[in-house]
Amino acid sequence: MNPARRNRLREAAIVVLADAGGRGLTHRAVDLVADVPPGTAKNYFPTRDALLRAAAERCVENYQELAARMAAAVPVDGGREDLVTLVRGLLANAAGPGRPRLLAYRELQAEAGRRPWLAEVLDPIAAADFAWFGQVLRTADPSVTPARATLLTLVLHGALTHLSAGGARTLDAAGLDDPDRFARELLAVALPG
Amino acid sequence: MNPARRNRLREAAIVVLADAGGRGLTHRAVDLVADVPPGTAKNYFPTRDALLRAAAERCVENYQELAARMAAAVPVDGGREDLVTLVRGLLANAAGPGRPRLLAYRELQAEAGRRPWLAEVLDPIAAADFAWFGQVLRTADPSVTPARATLLTLVLHGALTHLSAGGARTLDAAGLDDPDRFARELLAVALPG
Repeated sequence: MNPARRNRLREAAIVVLADAGGRGLTHRAVDLVADVPPGTAKNYFPTRDALLRAAAERCVENYQELAARMAAAVPVDGGREDLVTLVRGLLANAAGPGRPRLLAYRELQAEAGRRPWLAEVLDPIAAADFAWFGQVLRTADPSVTPARATLLTLVLHGALTHLSAGGARTLDAAGLDDPDRFARELLAVALPG
Repeated sequence: MNPARRNRLREAAIVVLADAGGRGLTHRAVDLVADVPPGTAKNYFPTRDALLRAAAERCVENYQELAARMAAAVPVDGGREDLVTLVRGLLANAAGPGRPRLLAYRELQAEAGRRPWLAEVLDPIAAADFAWFGQVLRTADPSVTPARATLLTLVLHGALTHLSAGGARTLDAAGLDDPDRFARELLAVALPG
């Protein structure tokens, strides 16, 4: 097994999930997107569950890369403006370049509702997100309690759900028609001081 | 077209989505679950998109029925205990009897990420939820601002996402391992007074 080719197939599985959904995730579709000879995906990931696992594991790595990039891009030194920039950046990424990955993650989450093993593979993503965003908030304001940090991370997760598939009225009701205002209101509740 | 049969087929589409995902949503599967002669689903809903639309429209009706039932079951008279009961009831329903419908909704949301028309069909669900929960909070405490009510509805939506597909660490980090404490902490942030 060639590690570079394996990674290429895993990336292709993400692209297929984003473009065609769980329904479109077949070995043939992954071979086509990865531009490899027919049968290659089946060779590396023999079953559809193996394909799902490969995509989910790649999703976890993608998340870790994104989290590192976000942390590096925004110098969170405790200033509220930095946090506004951070939240705005998360929302902009979800609506822009990160959208295909978010759609693939949604597909995997939907499949995970019926597959406990898949929920466990995806588990590190949300678990790390709670830890990461909680730390960001507590760095900005040490008086933020763990319970409040958890609730505010859930606000972001709810927002990302709607950004990936919300209709016009939903996005409006969620306040996501104006990401800058959304970020400010979130932080006003998060850091009332 | 027989309205009762049409409804039976729409309900069957929801069951198929919950049990087998978007990938399993075929006319044949819907016929089988609805226990009707082969070809019936195709007759009522000729394309797969028509099946998706039928399931989504039934989802919207299900939401409206659930919201009415929730509103009737809990006498929200402004007491914090009533709100705790309400939130606990929402979480218990999502983890229990409402789980199949929630999984079907997740599948439709995932498909809606690639189908704007489907996002619009589902739009009334989340939009009504923001309006409804916001009203519940403002009834309990008129000082709750619209922005805060929106954020707290997003907390619930994030929680429901994790309840449908979260691994053990995620549920723990989200505080959803203890729904009663979760409801109390949510309302402590919602109604600090």
